[in-house]
Amino acid sequence: MSGTFTFTVFKGDKSGVPKKATTTKPEQLTGDNVLVKVTASGLCGTDLHYKTEDMVLGHEGVGVVEAAGPDCKFLKKGDRVGWGYEHDSCGHCQQCLSGNETYCPKRAMYGFADRDQGSFASHAVWREAFLFKIPDEMSDEDAAPMQCGGATVFNALHAYNAMQTETVGIMGVGGLGHLAIQFAAKMGCRVVVLSGTDSKKEEAMRLGAHEFITTKGKKELQVSQPLNRLLVCTSAQPNWEQLIPILAPGAWVHPLSVDQGNFEIPYIPLLLGAITIQGSVVAPRYIHQRMLEFAALHKIKPVVQTFPMTEAGIKDAMEKLDQGKVHFRAVLKPE
Amino acid sequence: MSGTFTFTVFKGDKSGVPKKATTTKPEQLTGDNVLVKVTASGLCGTDLHYKTEDMVLGHEGVGVVEAAGPDCKFLKKGDRVGWGYEHDSCGHCQQCLSGNETYCPKRAMYGFADRDQGSFASHAVWREAFLFKIPDEMSDEDAAPMQCGGATVFNALHAYNAMQTETVGIMGVGGLGHLAIQFAAKMGCRVVVLSGTDSKKEEAMRLGAHEFITTKGKKELQVSQPLNRLLVCTSAQPNWEQLIPILAPGAWVHPLSVDQGNFEIPYIPLLLGAITIQGSVVAPRYIHQRMLEFAALHKIKPVVQTFPMTEAGIKDAMEKLDQGKVHFRAVLKPE
Repeated sequence: MSGTFTFTVFKGDKSGVPKKATTTKPEQLTGDNVLVKVTASGLCGTDLHYKTEDMVLGHEGVGVVEAAGPDCKFLKKGDRVGWGYEHDSCGHCQQCLSGNETYCPKRAMYGFADRDQGSFASHAVWREAFLFKIPDEMSDEDAAPMQCGGATVFNALHAYNAMQTETVGIMGVGGLGHLAIQFAAKMGCRVVVLSGTDSKKEEAMRLGAHEFITTKGKKELQVSQPLNRLLVCTSAQPNWEQLIPILAPGAWVHPLSVDQGNFEIPYIPLLLGAITIQGSVVAPRYIHQRMLEFAALHKIKPVVQTFPMTEAGIKDAMEKLDQGKVHFRAVLKPE
Repeated sequence: MSGTFTFTVFKGDKSGVPKKATTTKPEQLTGDNVLVKVTASGLCGTDLHYKTEDMVLGHEGVGVVEAAGPDCKFLKKGDRVGWGYEHDSCGHCQQCLSGNETYCPKRAMYGFADRDQGSFASHAVWREAFLFKIPDEMSDEDAAPMQCGGATVFNALHAYNAMQTETVGIMGVGGLGHLAIQFAAKMGCRVVVLSGTDSKKEEAMRLGAHEFITTKGKKELQVSQPLNRLLVCTSAQPNWEQLIPILAPGAWVHPLSVDQGNFEIPYIPLLLGAITIQGSVVAPRYIHQRMLEFAALHKIKPVVQTFPMTEAGIKDAMEKLDQGKVHFRAVLKPE
């Protein structure tokens, strides 16, 4: 005879202001399910897209294991864990078998599956197979934004073979960009930051940038070396008239933010410059683990601004993110 | 005391109909220059772009060496050679040193440099370093379209690591597509041809396709396996609504034809599908050589339609190409 367990969650709402609610799960854990008590959650641009939907928000979760199901193999009560965009995958397709489960056709992803759970919550139940141990050196607040933001930028560099000798352009110094600067710099790359104005220059240089270029109102950009890779971390699409002249032949472009329309790039320069446009989303698990270890080793940390995990706190954080006023990543902390 | 040598060329003209003219070069060859007597020239879509310009047309040249300059190391009188889009490069930059001289910032390319010479001509003088020996098994007519068309499609597959186990989509059965079908099939790939109607089905299957899909008026396309790679060999841009559902996760898209506008693709599927858009142009020399050897070994041949290399013949061939009536690659033969 097993009972149920009810916990607090925060869901999107037609009003656009998330509301407190509850989710109920069986008390008895089955399979490799793990009950996690949330200690911190990042707030990501994608959460804003779902703020009017009837689903629990949040996909940058960190917490402590409260109980582990009968098939769990490596987690136990008290372990600190994180999770991100993906909760499950089929385990049998080409993508799963080749370590690319983020592209499994049956993947369970934030927004598409398990909409009764998220990291804006007191608790959540997830498969052990999709939880990541948090390195001891990393605080809960710092670990939270790594579960999506950190994974996304690290994956673009690591999964697509960024070399130490590359010049890497980071467009936009925000939630993604300020992490990308640190990862690229610690990988040994020459890091060129592109930003509208120089208001974030000092901080970008402190985070490891070697060069800072302002773009607003400029016809031509000057860089010391052409860019072998460009991480687009802004929500606005790139201005190719400015950018194509500073891309090296064979440059890789990684659009990392999300836009509802088309991605566009001039056709002939794409061919003549042997440019690669590389789509990607978060990181498969083996890369997610490497990302956490790399960040711990090199003391890569998000710059976070914390908010209470309450209706008011979430509203406040979301509004600030929408207005581009978060410096640089919002983290919600349960009261 | 050396004289000069004057030969016939065919140049673009304001009227849009190429005109016969002459080019004069020093009789005495210097450096590694080679005098080639043209025996065949392919006609490529790019030639149409230049038909109104004051430049010699043609960049799919095949001929016989008539004389080799003092620094030549491997070519001698009587050798059969071909050349393509590129005539020279700096030899010192990162691209040249890494076997990517097609992206050398100082590359000499058709349309941009050496506009007094081309393959619509009786002769041409080119650097030995940018000439390719034609395999004995290959006729002049068959070798000509390989110098640009063949190189372009082989490069997309070979330089970007097409695997034997891939399903490769070839969109469009024309000058590029009919070669791409053969190369992909001989590489061991499952070849799916996409074409508006089934008028070219029989020929596509004969060339090695495993599957033929018509696209005109279809909302949904049915393929036996999702495409790991798509070579866009049509001048029209792809209809992504049809195509995205049949792309495998992590698919590579190679736009191979040329368009003046933007290349566009829906943003979110690009990210969620981990799609790679890969720009490229012809092939660097080491790949061009491999292409010729691969084609000779596997008896890969263009389907050619020959025209006389005269003002009337060129006009006729260009008009047919423009109307999509060439079957499948036009080749000009000096009279």
